[in-house]
Amino acid sequence: MKSPELNLCGLVAVRSRFEKDPASIKRLFFDEATGRKVGVICKALAAGRKVYRCVPAAELEKIAGSIHHGGIVAVIDAPKLRAPDARTVANWAAKRTPLVLLDRIGNAHNLGAIARTAAFFGVENIVIPAHPQAALPGEAAFRVSEGGLEQVEVWRTPDLAKLMRELAAAGYDVAGAAARGGKPVLLAGPAKPVAVVLGNEEHGLAADVERACTRLVTIPGSGRVESLNVSVAGAVLIYALLAGR
Amino acid sequence: MKSPELNLCGLVAVRSRFEKDPASIKRLFFDEATGRKVGVICKALAAGRKVYRCVPAAELEKIAGSIHHGGIVAVIDAPKLRAPDARTVANWAAKRTPLVLLDRIGNAHNLGAIARTAAFFGVENIVIPAHPQAALPGEAAFRVSEGGLEQVEVWRTPDLAKLMRELAAAGYDVAGAAARGGKPVLLAGPAKPVAVVLGNEEHGLAADVERACTRLVTIPGSGRVESLNVSVAGAVLIYALLAGR
Repeated sequence: MKSPELNLCGLVAVRSRFEKDPASIKRLFFDEATGRKVGVICKALAAGRKVYRCVPAAELEKIAGSIHHGGIVAVIDAPKLRAPDARTVANWAAKRTPLVLLDRIGNAHNLGAIARTAAFFGVENIVIPAHPQAALPGEAAFRVSEGGLEQVEVWRTPDLAKLMRELAAAGYDVAGAAARGGKPVLLAGPAKPVAVVLGNEEHGLAADVERACTRLVTIPGSGRVESLNVSVAGAVLIYALLAGR
Repeated sequence: MKSPELNLCGLVAVRSRFEKDPASIKRLFFDEATGRKVGVICKALAAGRKVYRCVPAAELEKIAGSIHHGGIVAVIDAPKLRAPDARTVANWAAKRTPLVLLDRIGNAHNLGAIARTAAFFGVENIVIPAHPQAALPGEAAFRVSEGGLEQVEVWRTPDLAKLMRELAAAGYDVAGAAARGGKPVLLAGPAKPVAVVLGNEEHGLAADVERACTRLVTIPGSGRVESLNVSVAGAVLIYALLAGR
């Protein structure tokens, strides 16, 4: 069976992928202006006997399946999403690895934006549930992440609440973002490794996910608007609880 | 001369406007499902002998000029953007008013997202320059702000750098966001009132704007991705430097 492919769009994403894993680029298409900036990548593809081609705008749009191709499209294998097992959890705990857990973030742009922020702050692991509502790291997410998804591994677990209980048992501070009722977030936190859990855009944390948190945190607001955008709330929490650990 | 009008789209934005200034809604259009939720607003419009009407989806899209109408469109006068004068600056300084200054944020979605975050954290004044590159608080910005632009006054100054010098002279800590080279941001700051200055998405702060800052701040990152989205960087800085003051 042929593995599913994914179009990586935009110069930042393509360059970022090339720097990290040049062999993973299977084919490359670009417009004339962008082609002048990717000579090195084309040379590597030529050496690997792979297709790279300058194409007219209309064709590039068709290949990308979007007008948001940014002048260049690299075809790669879609990332395989591993499920974290007991060994992974033990390994994370031993290394005090900061984690971002997303409880059914449904909008791929939000997933991409959160991945960009996570990568910026050095958070290298994001976990999503195997749930039909959860956005996957596809083309839109890769584009919005501006190279962030190249720096982050996205894991997929069949049972997010169960994983959270395993993380708590392994010593994690599992901090769930609650729109209200949680403790206010400040910079300082407990000395444990931290997993930040962000809920669905509309519905927040699911009941079983909320129960599996070791604490709930709320970003103190003025009350004048109901909420922050989830990628903004995620950024504040990643900055406050995970950055620089 | 008829003043320019603006379409406020979406239930959150329309409700937020109605709560703040019911008389400012000039006309209201909605689909059937949304109409059931705005009886109170319709009643007020009826009392004011104003038009409110349930229309088919195609007409609503035409009125809104966008598919992103969220089922309801309120027509209002476009906000008049005042220029802050010497008295305004003195008043802000006396009240230690937190400020967000945007140096040519070009994308209306970013303007709306920043306004939402500012409103969430109780920051009620945003200043933009009278510059063709600077996005204005129009329909897209209002929509993305989810009611935030109802809670914030957007000011427009002919000379942002000059205003920043006046703020500094009035005692403000004028903190410019620099992608690199600034001091790292932490929660604590000087005891002065703070104005956070965010630069253009592509080019950052203009040279004269950067010179007019009393300090430059940089959000410490991993170096793995080049930058944060400006609305995310803005959120982290508003949280770290302005929130709860």
